[in-house]
Amino acid sequence: MINENYLKLKESYLFSTIAKKVGDYSKTYPEKRITRLGIGDVTRPLAPVVVEAIGKAVLEMGKAETFRGYGEEQGYLFLRKAICEYYAKRSVMLNEDEVFISDGAKSDLGNILDIFSAANTVQIPDPVYPVYVDTNIMAGRSITYINGNIENNFLPMPDRKNKADIIYLCSPNNPTGSLYSKEELKAWVDYALENDAVILFDSAYEIFVRNENYPRSIFEIEGAVECAIEFCSFSKTAGFTGTRCGYTIIPKKLKRNSIALNGMWLRRQTTKFNGVPYIVQRGAEAVFTDAGQVQIKEAIDYYLENANIIANTLTELGIWYTGGKNSPYIWMKCPKNMLSWDFFDQLLEKTGVVGTPGAGFGNMGEGFFRLSAFGSKENVLYGMEKFREYGGTL
Amino acid sequence: MINENYLKLKESYLFSTIAKKVGDYSKTYPEKRITRLGIGDVTRPLAPVVVEAIGKAVLEMGKAETFRGYGEEQGYLFLRKAICEYYAKRSVMLNEDEVFISDGAKSDLGNILDIFSAANTVQIPDPVYPVYVDTNIMAGRSITYINGNIENNFLPMPDRKNKADIIYLCSPNNPTGSLYSKEELKAWVDYALENDAVILFDSAYEIFVRNENYPRSIFEIEGAVECAIEFCSFSKTAGFTGTRCGYTIIPKKLKRNSIALNGMWLRRQTTKFNGVPYIVQRGAEAVFTDAGQVQIKEAIDYYLENANIIANTLTELGIWYTGGKNSPYIWMKCPKNMLSWDFFDQLLEKTGVVGTPGAGFGNMGEGFFRLSAFGSKENVLYGMEKFREYGGTL
Repeated sequence: MINENYLKLKESYLFSTIAKKVGDYSKTYPEKRITRLGIGDVTRPLAPVVVEAIGKAVLEMGKAETFRGYGEEQGYLFLRKAICEYYAKRSVMLNEDEVFISDGAKSDLGNILDIFSAANTVQIPDPVYPVYVDTNIMAGRSITYINGNIENNFLPMPDRKNKADIIYLCSPNNPTGSLYSKEELKAWVDYALENDAVILFDSAYEIFVRNENYPRSIFEIEGAVECAIEFCSFSKTAGFTGTRCGYTIIPKKLKRNSIALNGMWLRRQTTKFNGVPYIVQRGAEAVFTDAGQVQIKEAIDYYLENANIIANTLTELGIWYTGGKNSPYIWMKCPKNMLSWDFFDQLLEKTGVVGTPGAGFGNMGEGFFRLSAFGSKENVLYGMEKFREYGGTL
Repeated sequence: MINENYLKLKESYLFSTIAKKVGDYSKTYPEKRITRLGIGDVTRPLAPVVVEAIGKAVLEMGKAETFRGYGEEQGYLFLRKAICEYYAKRSVMLNEDEVFISDGAKSDLGNILDIFSAANTVQIPDPVYPVYVDTNIMAGRSITYINGNIENNFLPMPDRKNKADIIYLCSPNNPTGSLYSKEELKAWVDYALENDAVILFDSAYEIFVRNENYPRSIFEIEGAVECAIEFCSFSKTAGFTGTRCGYTIIPKKLKRNSIALNGMWLRRQTTKFNGVPYIVQRGAEAVFTDAGQVQIKEAIDYYLENANIIANTLTELGIWYTGGKNSPYIWMKCPKNMLSWDFFDQLLEKTGVVGTPGAGFGNMGEGFFRLSAFGSKENVLYGMEKFREYGGTL
């Protein structure tokens, strides 16, 4: 009767366990300061142009003459056009009907699986954003992992012995902050083309890439239009985690079994989705205006400065890490080969700093720790002061 | 590689064919007035309290001190509480954790299937909202139909010879506008309990029920908490078709294979969904204030008056119909046993009135025609004048 694949899901206690441990700590040491550097959510407010655009749109919705009901199937053309222009700046030429407006990358990354056979095998990097794994377990697909480690800088490359139908890639990566080069992504595209596989490319953190030599879209790679789907979001780009808007790009050239996946996804979305609020799409459109681009850059600069402070401190302390540049995440090795939960406990106990144990992101995350740049600069500076203070004994 | 069930979907040409025929008509008779009475979308603007609440919320989102990132997993408690209070007025007592805020009934009606086995059999009324059928074809489930007709007033009752695991009910019904009584729904609940089936109850049009003796929620029926899930939406209630918010109710007592479906859905939603915009949830909350209830009643009164004008005209002309009371839809028999597309063509040709052919909603819809009350009163009056003028010859 029920979908029994759900019984195979592991309960994730990652964030609830962190919350409990931090709660216990505050009870034991009510006077001690807690510095949260584990946060995966944005903290900077919406840009003024976005607030203004939404405010104007909601007034339109309050008048009969300008009221809007159901929107355009793939999202409003004004927003899809703005997205195409954004990609065109990096010489990625898309057609508006290759862009689907979504309520966020997470929804589409899960729902896209509807158009693939349940018999497909899936290749997922480890460590990873847990949603890739859980959505496939729910659908009963068999999963193979591709391992990230210090040797490959947590950027696993294709293993030609290991065939898969669906491949997940996320760059800049959550949780590791590491970033594939064009050559590395080209190797993945070639592998996908050889194996008739489809790459699901999560580019939710593309806005953090400041190094012009690195790709921000899989479609910067030749051949990707025949083997990749890209998922992006305004969540991290423009602080939309609580405002909900993203987009998914399915090139018309991407076919499997001679069927265009673009058309399948259109059918899926028109049957099981009814679009993103008009007012939110107007807010998202404003992100792409000149003023919008300047305003969102301020917030990204703010987070990247935090990341830089953390990265510099770790360099200074001789701690191995990746990320921290072109990414809001810093992925560090736990000192003295500690297990990630042991390090979590010790760090909290000694310094009041809260991070995220790497073991929560997969087996290969054991022994590592994620720090995030999404908090306040003040907290980041205070936390890094504590790292320095306890440096030798951490 | 692809989900081959998609190849079994029939393309729906219903609304595109209507658009084409109306376009051809305007070209042939550019001077003639077209009166659209087929529309399934709302036309009245958002209520002033909703506009105000969203406007206020977006200003909060623009300030660091009041900014909100990811929201509460099942939707904000303030909105779930308001929904529970709304149900409590009709003596349906729900717990806040039985309510899930969604981006609309359509999404959840499709996505809920994720938690059920693909081997389940499904029972769907005919005629019906096409989404119930298509979402199940996509998942490869076997479907049996329960037939609506004049004899049962398009309110099919359980057939004890016909067992199903999942049953769809929609009351007030789209497309027929007919409405189950408490006794009739009790028979469905008893049948579901006997067969261990789950009723997916679509109550998207509940706000149109003005007759106090009729149920607006399946949970007004004893036993339903052990066999039903209810899907509702602000789309028709408060003109949210372009603003996107709804809710799904899964009682804690609803279990199958000893597993609470509430917990399975929570897991599904936290893995594949990231909630509804904070600003939209504030707008939805405002619907439940005293001022909000008065304001949304104005729009519903407006649509119900339109429905009444249509219903009275059909009564006067001796045309069989159902709906038109407690519903924005009127489902009429095509005069002279015409097929529904033939009637569409003739009505358009003679009067310029556009409706929706019943055949678009399933085999049992053949020979019937849907008129909708969502247009302007002026159009409805004009359209009914034309019906009267051509009454004998239609």
